[in-house]
Amino acid sequence: MRKVAIIGVGCTKFGELWDKSFRDIFIEAGIEAIEDSGIEGREIEAIYVGNMSAGRYINQEHIAALIADYSGLAEFGIPASRVEAADASGGLALRHAFMAVASGLHDIVIAAGVEKVTDVGDPAGMLSTTIDQEWESFVGANLASLYAIIARLHMETYGGKEEDLAMVSVKNHRNAMKNPKAQLKREISVEDVLNSPYVAEPLKLLDCSPICDGAAAVVVASDEVAKKVTDSPVYISCSTQASDYLALHSRKDILKFKSIVKASREAYKLAKIDPKDVKVAEVHDSFSIAEIIAYEDLGFARKGEGYRLIREGITELSGELPVNTSGGLKACGHAPGATGVRQAVEITLQLRGEAGKRQVDAEVGLSLNLGGAGATAVVSIFRI
Amino acid sequence: MRKVAIIGVGCTKFGELWDKSFRDIFIEAGIEAIEDSGIEGREIEAIYVGNMSAGRYINQEHIAALIADYSGLAEFGIPASRVEAADASGGLALRHAFMAVASGLHDIVIAAGVEKVTDVGDPAGMLSTTIDQEWESFVGANLASLYAIIARLHMETYGGKEEDLAMVSVKNHRNAMKNPKAQLKREISVEDVLNSPYVAEPLKLLDCSPICDGAAAVVVASDEVAKKVTDSPVYISCSTQASDYLALHSRKDILKFKSIVKASREAYKLAKIDPKDVKVAEVHDSFSIAEIIAYEDLGFARKGEGYRLIREGITELSGELPVNTSGGLKACGHAPGATGVRQAVEITLQLRGEAGKRQVDAEVGLSLNLGGAGATAVVSIFRI
Repeated sequence: MRKVAIIGVGCTKFGELWDKSFRDIFIEAGIEAIEDSGIEGREIEAIYVGNMSAGRYINQEHIAALIADYSGLAEFGIPASRVEAADASGGLALRHAFMAVASGLHDIVIAAGVEKVTDVGDPAGMLSTTIDQEWESFVGANLASLYAIIARLHMETYGGKEEDLAMVSVKNHRNAMKNPKAQLKREISVEDVLNSPYVAEPLKLLDCSPICDGAAAVVVASDEVAKKVTDSPVYISCSTQASDYLALHSRKDILKFKSIVKASREAYKLAKIDPKDVKVAEVHDSFSIAEIIAYEDLGFARKGEGYRLIREGITELSGELPVNTSGGLKACGHAPGATGVRQAVEITLQLRGEAGKRQVDAEVGLSLNLGGAGATAVVSIFRI
Repeated sequence: MRKVAIIGVGCTKFGELWDKSFRDIFIEAGIEAIEDSGIEGREIEAIYVGNMSAGRYINQEHIAALIADYSGLAEFGIPASRVEAADASGGLALRHAFMAVASGLHDIVIAAGVEKVTDVGDPAGMLSTTIDQEWESFVGANLASLYAIIARLHMETYGGKEEDLAMVSVKNHRNAMKNPKAQLKREISVEDVLNSPYVAEPLKLLDCSPICDGAAAVVVASDEVAKKVTDSPVYISCSTQASDYLALHSRKDILKFKSIVKASREAYKLAKIDPKDVKVAEVHDSFSIAEIIAYEDLGFARKGEGYRLIREGITELSGELPVNTSGGLKACGHAPGATGVRQAVEITLQLRGEAGKRQVDAEVGLSLNLGGAGATAVVSIFRI
């Protein structure tokens, strides 16, 4: 396997982009990434697109071909593939791009993620089609209620409080204030979270990430190319993927996301690092409890001790291990197919030292992108 | 790149499978493939699933995770990825599986394709969301009408007749009579085709493939594994993919499918063969004209001379280059996400000498799977 680098990044604002179409936003992110990389569009050899539900959100399948067409890259006939694993689709696109370059198949490719959700009435309901339709949705469950079950049991088992969960959202909103691309740039307090209405007890409105529009793109290249075109390559040490049962009731332990444990342990081994070597992370906080579980299953804390990291400020911008410096899904916004690539953009900016007011000191970063209630996990490790 | 072999194949009947669910059919195809391969399920290291529109056909996204769950493979936590490029999704799954093994990333993987379309009212309408929604569908075009434009111009330019197109359907129905998995096992005549109602002039009902339910799976392994477990490996020499503009109006020449030309020329080069070395082929006859264009753009005939192959019986079972021995999309049936993998199953059976009454004499085979109106083409070359 060859060394693989990110040589360019692009990202739209995340949010309710009423004035922009699906086509507008992927072009915006793609052009930004290509310009940032210093390569020409025609040097791109393949496109991997993460997208969850364009078929239902905008009534268009075959969107990788659409992107090749609209970007002009169809002129060169390059392969354009969509990959999907619910809201881990972006992470999957990054992983496929990484593998294409690492294996020597391609020298320069694009990994992009895009989702336009605000053209339909119930975008969050559509996100819930990523859980088991016959055994979960059919009986009235949705993503929020499944995470609520997990949260309730986790809190009871390990002594968590609603205040602890609230602190995750408070931190992520605070970080988003410093991210010009974030959707929810406003500070909130623990009281605000506690006073927000229950969505699925114990999860309240401000425990849940907003489903929004957005697109992100990274140019992924071999080390040889990277050394020619940039002074600030960010290397992808590895990108791993693992599965768990889709339906919660099939899992032996719903408090331990086996997909995260397996993908991260493989990633640490491939990157030859320990969890403690990670100095900045973007994790999948679709719900506040998901960030606590990510702390534990990524090995940043022992099982049941995730609350300590948020209570002690360890994952704040000023802490030992800043998590979701972008604002995370909670406050940067969650554009399902785009999120995994947006995470890679954030880690790249942090490692380059280009993260502005939210800059932290890190040479090794990690991203964790989950599909649905964790049936798919993609972990990527980055370093300079 | 390592040598890659197909060591097991499985396929459901194609058709209106009212008594079976999405879950039933992928399990049926997967178990058949695993049993055929002689490996254990737990030896599988990754799953690549081709599927076009489960989100809209059965209201379920994240179907690779569903398949990992229902097959029990989630127990081992292996990566499960869905890939999509309209009705080339199956071909794409095969290509990703091929690359995963060729690159040395994995030793044994599954490529599967699945589609369950009969649970909704307008399955063919949904297939038309694979063309450009804003510039084609919005003005009333659908897949059939786009292919009708292509057919009309091709016939006028090169002297084709509706009878020529009809002969493609007649051949494919005749082949399907000998395929126990085929949907339309009845002989039709040129007159039947000519007397069937126009769908989009000059294309009639019997020029169009039926959209149906179906699943197919192949076990793909390294040569090293193949040599241990089977006496009849079928090697995948290569699997290539190329794009064209999604919208027909952006193409310089709508009679030449640039995606097919590029993907097949790359494939011939990688496999070190000429078009004339191909002795059996499964091509994407979503409409009869598409098979004629495939003859030409794959290099089996010069541009404009595709009609000769069907007129002279060259692509019949008894001809020099039998095409769509399975019955093709026209008569075996077209389950969009499954078709590309089903093609690989057919070529494998032919090269193994296990194709029963439709057996031809061949050591080199080719499959061509298209997305929509040809914006994506996947070409794979097989040999024993």
